[in-house]
Amino acid sequence: MSARPRISSARLWGDLMELGKIGARPGGGIHRPALSAEDALGREWFVAACERAGLEVRMDSLRNVIARVPAADPGAKVLATGSHLDTVPGGGMFDGALGVLAGLECARAIKEQGMELPYHLEVINFTDEEGAYGAGSVGSRAMLGSLVPGELERVSPLKGRSFAEDLAKAGGDAAGSARRDAGEFAAFVELHIEQGSRLESEGIACGVVTAIVSIDRYEVTVTGEAGHAGTTPMHLRRDALVMAAPLFTLVPQWAAEQNPEMVATIGTVSLEPGTPNVIPGKCRFIIELRGEKQEDLDAVRMRLDGFIKDRPEFSVRQIYKKPGVSMHRDVRAAVEKAIAMEGCSFMRLPSGAGHDAHTFGHHVPTGMIFIPCRNGVSHNPDEWADREQAALGAQILLNTLLVLAGKA
Amino acid sequence: MSARPRISSARLWGDLMELGKIGARPGGGIHRPALSAEDALGREWFVAACERAGLEVRMDSLRNVIARVPAADPGAKVLATGSHLDTVPGGGMFDGALGVLAGLECARAIKEQGMELPYHLEVINFTDEEGAYGAGSVGSRAMLGSLVPGELERVSPLKGRSFAEDLAKAGGDAAGSARRDAGEFAAFVELHIEQGSRLESEGIACGVVTAIVSIDRYEVTVTGEAGHAGTTPMHLRRDALVMAAPLFTLVPQWAAEQNPEMVATIGTVSLEPGTPNVIPGKCRFIIELRGEKQEDLDAVRMRLDGFIKDRPEFSVRQIYKKPGVSMHRDVRAAVEKAIAMEGCSFMRLPSGAGHDAHTFGHHVPTGMIFIPCRNGVSHNPDEWADREQAALGAQILLNTLLVLAGKA
Repeated sequence: MSARPRISSARLWGDLMELGKIGARPGGGIHRPALSAEDALGREWFVAACERAGLEVRMDSLRNVIARVPAADPGAKVLATGSHLDTVPGGGMFDGALGVLAGLECARAIKEQGMELPYHLEVINFTDEEGAYGAGSVGSRAMLGSLVPGELERVSPLKGRSFAEDLAKAGGDAAGSARRDAGEFAAFVELHIEQGSRLESEGIACGVVTAIVSIDRYEVTVTGEAGHAGTTPMHLRRDALVMAAPLFTLVPQWAAEQNPEMVATIGTVSLEPGTPNVIPGKCRFIIELRGEKQEDLDAVRMRLDGFIKDRPEFSVRQIYKKPGVSMHRDVRAAVEKAIAMEGCSFMRLPSGAGHDAHTFGHHVPTGMIFIPCRNGVSHNPDEWADREQAALGAQILLNTLLVLAGKA
Repeated sequence: MSARPRISSARLWGDLMELGKIGARPGGGIHRPALSAEDALGREWFVAACERAGLEVRMDSLRNVIARVPAADPGAKVLATGSHLDTVPGGGMFDGALGVLAGLECARAIKEQGMELPYHLEVINFTDEEGAYGAGSVGSRAMLGSLVPGELERVSPLKGRSFAEDLAKAGGDAAGSARRDAGEFAAFVELHIEQGSRLESEGIACGVVTAIVSIDRYEVTVTGEAGHAGTTPMHLRRDALVMAAPLFTLVPQWAAEQNPEMVATIGTVSLEPGTPNVIPGKCRFIIELRGEKQEDLDAVRMRLDGFIKDRPEFSVRQIYKKPGVSMHRDVRAAVEKAIAMEGCSFMRLPSGAGHDAHTFGHHVPTGMIFIPCRNGVSHNPDEWADREQAALGAQILLNTLLVLAGKA
């Protein structure tokens, strides 16, 4: 029996740095939005790297890249890992890229050892995780059949074109079938930077994701009465901002009281008419709630309902709902065993961001591994992960795949 | 000696309704912004009405219309009244128009009685009081020499053209001299709707303006730290909106505590980056303070300074300062005597809005008379004044002119 395979830190880091040149902007930051010319270059580079490593590579109709180390039995199930090579405009070198390149490094390490797995091992680069056309996780959702009918053909307000139109230019076909049966997959594991600062601030080497959170968004409208800011005395005013303001501090406070694991954010406020010399007649803002437990989100919503009950000036409308998903017990256990094999510190934590694993989690036994990123920064040119942390994350991913394959 | 002259309510109301057709929009509201085609029609209509009434009419280089009932002595000083015929886009029938047309009615009433005054009586329609190009009170400031050098030639961000350019098209000349010596004027009196609801809410027939308020504007910037709304726990956040929110209620409260006569308004708030899923990294808003006493404005500013003293996240910058002006003691006394002649209720109150009288107040003995407007609404198609209240206002204006002329 062969020795347990190890990833090569130098090779992984070399790949990350090499890929990081594609779409790099002079002033800093990586620009590789889905279906852009830079995204195509990133995809071609990855295909070539996989071919050099001896993997079987194919691209489906959504331009998802699927690189496989086949099992001896052609009818074997698929053990999959991966993430995405697209970035937000002006993003960083690790969000998505780490998961794809670490997957490739795992496949190389397994092949080098001549190790045979009872599963086909697949490393997947999913198209448009970041939502360049608005929605996000397009490639993984197409693969698992959870696109909204017609969504790819709609003209995106962000682009003025449809995803389908740009996909065709990139050599894909929105009408083609990237769809696969979820039963094909034994499990899916994704390595990712945390995009937050919990691991770093507590000095912990890696995170076992417990769940990907639920997201609810509410639009609140407060209706007062606009008026001349010079001629309307204070006691006769019905100022929509003054009425709304207590919620700007109460909502975050309710969330913190409900569960330290949940978050609440008001990221947008608009006033009408919105000029310095007119009393605000309307104040609109969006409350975003995220948390692992839907009942926490519902509890904050109930406190909001309690607040507005006797205030007819307030109205609330839910504008977005994305149900959360728990990571699979067996895959979590495999990740924790993989961590124990390295003897490093870890914590369990939910993912506040969405990922391709969010899509898989609803259909396939799924797990995620987080490594720290500097200052918790992501979607930003300053996004950074240490070389050792990246290597440790990739080794834990490899160990996890081996555990799931019964080889460790 | 002739009987004391009386204005004709029917004639004044007829003029208001007639003028109200010029620029009237199908859906309601009057559209007569300065130097527009509608403004030109309003000016021509007014010139014709003054000529029919036998006044000497001239237009200066700013297209201010100056209609005169001359005194016997050509070297006499000028007793002036007036206001403006331009409107905000979608404005009402009374703001400005009442003061001009009541002035014309006073001149007619004096001429009809064959009464001779020791002053030239002038009724003036000032160009662009409303600030269609940004600044406002252009005609009165040109007349009294308080334009900022070059301001008429600057391209207005509101129009994409300069005031000077459009003035030339309207037959005027920004380089011409509309300037007059302040010493020419014995006094200036302006009748105006209140544009607030104090008179109406207290059931009082008219207001004696004590002063036109000072206006200070401050831009406040709160700098927190932007971050992913899903991955940054509540206790690690530095949310600029949460930090800023207490001021949204405190500032109005400080103003109300300082002096019920002053007002404070936050009419504009902006967040950066301003999306639902990012913690606000910056919150900017503008505080506008208005009041008769500069020390009240300064006191609120001091409480603001106290609030931010130990909060380095806050910075404050004054972006606007318009010093107030007291109405002249003698003119106020004349207005109060004029009111007593009608035996109606009155109150003394400051004007929270600016007016052509604001310009005159810094150079010439000046007073203002307010009448109520329905629900305090102004700059709005719903702006309205009762026929009887308009007539009473005009009669008080006439009485005031007579008192100032030593004829009552």
